[in-house]
Amino acid sequence: MKVYAGLAGIPVVKSSISYIDGQKGILEYRGIPIYELVQNSNFLEVSYLLVFGKLPKQTEYDQFLCDVKNNLNVDSSIINFLKDIPKDTHPMKVLQSIIPILSAFDENKDVLDEKHHYSALVRLLGQTPTVLAAWKRISEGKEIVEPDFRLSYGENFLYMLRGEKPEKAEGEIFDKCLILHAEHTINASTFTAIVVVSTLADFYSCVSSAVGSLSGRLHGGANERVYHMLSHIEKIEDIPKIIDEKLSRKERIMGFGHRVYKTYDPRALIIKELLEKLIKIKGDNIPLYQKAKEFEKVALERLKEKKIYPNIDFYSGVLYSLLGIPPEFYTPVFAMARISGWIAHCKEYLKENKLFRPTQIYDGGHNIHYIPPEKRE
Amino acid sequence: MKVYAGLAGIPVVKSSISYIDGQKGILEYRGIPIYELVQNSNFLEVSYLLVFGKLPKQTEYDQFLCDVKNNLNVDSSIINFLKDIPKDTHPMKVLQSIIPILSAFDENKDVLDEKHHYSALVRLLGQTPTVLAAWKRISEGKEIVEPDFRLSYGENFLYMLRGEKPEKAEGEIFDKCLILHAEHTINASTFTAIVVVSTLADFYSCVSSAVGSLSGRLHGGANERVYHMLSHIEKIEDIPKIIDEKLSRKERIMGFGHRVYKTYDPRALIIKELLEKLIKIKGDNIPLYQKAKEFEKVALERLKEKKIYPNIDFYSGVLYSLLGIPPEFYTPVFAMARISGWIAHCKEYLKENKLFRPTQIYDGGHNIHYIPPEKRE
Repeated sequence: MKVYAGLAGIPVVKSSISYIDGQKGILEYRGIPIYELVQNSNFLEVSYLLVFGKLPKQTEYDQFLCDVKNNLNVDSSIINFLKDIPKDTHPMKVLQSIIPILSAFDENKDVLDEKHHYSALVRLLGQTPTVLAAWKRISEGKEIVEPDFRLSYGENFLYMLRGEKPEKAEGEIFDKCLILHAEHTINASTFTAIVVVSTLADFYSCVSSAVGSLSGRLHGGANERVYHMLSHIEKIEDIPKIIDEKLSRKERIMGFGHRVYKTYDPRALIIKELLEKLIKIKGDNIPLYQKAKEFEKVALERLKEKKIYPNIDFYSGVLYSLLGIPPEFYTPVFAMARISGWIAHCKEYLKENKLFRPTQIYDGGHNIHYIPPEKRE
Repeated sequence: MKVYAGLAGIPVVKSSISYIDGQKGILEYRGIPIYELVQNSNFLEVSYLLVFGKLPKQTEYDQFLCDVKNNLNVDSSIINFLKDIPKDTHPMKVLQSIIPILSAFDENKDVLDEKHHYSALVRLLGQTPTVLAAWKRISEGKEIVEPDFRLSYGENFLYMLRGEKPEKAEGEIFDKCLILHAEHTINASTFTAIVVVSTLADFYSCVSSAVGSLSGRLHGGANERVYHMLSHIEKIEDIPKIIDEKLSRKERIMGFGHRVYKTYDPRALIIKELLEKLIKIKGDNIPLYQKAKEFEKVALERLKEKKIYPNIDFYSGVLYSLLGIPPEFYTPVFAMARISGWIAHCKEYLKENKLFRPTQIYDGGHNIHYIPPEKRE
């Protein structure tokens, strides 16, 4: 008997939600290539596609949008709580904490009932951005901004976060970033969600646990680290030296390389295009953007031979910072998008549910006697 | 490639925390038989043993006890929140929600630092009972009861819950129940805790996620269901008929049989003794106890041939009800005890941490095109 450490390569589910071909740089949601979705769809439609397995008809979409928008407001008990806790609480802790309580306001409590799946989805899609934006403002000592139902999903989040209406294009660009983060097969957080749902815990418990899993630095937070790395570079001219020093120390270059993609991460190509679009609005006189461009160029020259390319995290931090999202909210924004993927996997797993019960190899002693305190050494 | 559904029988860790021999009815914590621990030790000492791998020296124990007791109080922000949320919120949701926020009050944030392990352990052991007792009273519209540092750990919980001091023996009996629930190798909730810690999330996130996992009805809640089954029996004389009907319908008899124990669950034998002790204090004129006795006798006669015996859940609900604990708090009490086991496994897993990254077998379509809304069917 050997231990399957980290379960690397062990299939735990059959799934038709998303597919990755790391050699060819393909990512599909429900069989549709990611770039087609980014080009034609929006985050809420993609969420529907992921969870229900098909693109919604116009009437279904209208209803879905309406149900999400009807859930943008959070209960005053939650806002009061956010005003009461320490201002330096990490937003991932806030998110993990608030999500289970949202279930208290949902009368559809049976996890085996489709009504629960729909209800948890629209509530979590509706309320998570509001909770995060409220926490950003409260933690900065500012007044919270009520959601504006007339704005698009992406615009509304940026509006609540920043306190002023974003350009329409900013909202669209942000919405497309959410599409890119909505799903990515099985990773530690999605696996956590599946393990939790296998006990027949409800979707709020599953999503909260997945947020907990994503809060670990081996999982979430890569784009935050890229952002800080770029921010700490003082002069653009230093970049080649900085990269060469990292390489000679055999350090990993942050934002480059991916466990599954052995070519360009298709999401990295898309996010770079989105960033260029945003730069057209904001102007290119932005030091962080200039540094990122130069860093990518030099690192790519040095790493191309090894087939190491920029990943989604390389440009997403830069893009988020231009949208006015503070670095500690990059992972929460990832979580906000991934709610759809987590719920899609939970719903799929319940179709042939099997409680997770792996085992252990015991390597301790046996039949040891209790020693009273005075005789212990 | 096949799917390892539920990972049944797949070893995911090497562990020296606990050991079960289901054929012989043996359960050991760190090699010490469970009955020796129940006889000689107490829950906090056992928690120390599980997490740190050895029984504490007198000075270590004194410090540990002092640190747990110094953490009995919870921040007013949490109490205010509990006063504000819907009164019918399930206590498992409350627990899952409050635990991540407790991290905000802990300055030891690095999960790879031993200080975090100790600090999270004493805080969670200290504050979880207070949160649960406060929620019980708030949800019943009663004033909360402040913790009393002079009482033992078990007495204090019953005191905060009930609002009056329990008999010393009640506190001791309850404390021994906590020992029985503190650890039981790998199950879904312990596995959840390990998956979450593998991302380097902190112990608060891990324990909260494990609580979420335990909230599912395929995992926690068996003793609550036994309690309700017994409560619904109207006349003791009906019991043989009730059991025979269940058996002829091939229904499982609740509180009987266990996946791993093919003989008496050693914890069931102990909890029965504890219940008898409690009956000596309370008197035996208690209908629920009488029904449980008769039910056990009859079911045992019918099931002995199949080697199906009462498990820990059969008598624990009866015992908890005599201690004044409401049924919906049975699983939260289980969680309160299992915190030690969860933290022990998290700490152990970090020694040779490997991020969990299982995989999937994709069974969906490919290269499907996006269809505009008006053309969807």
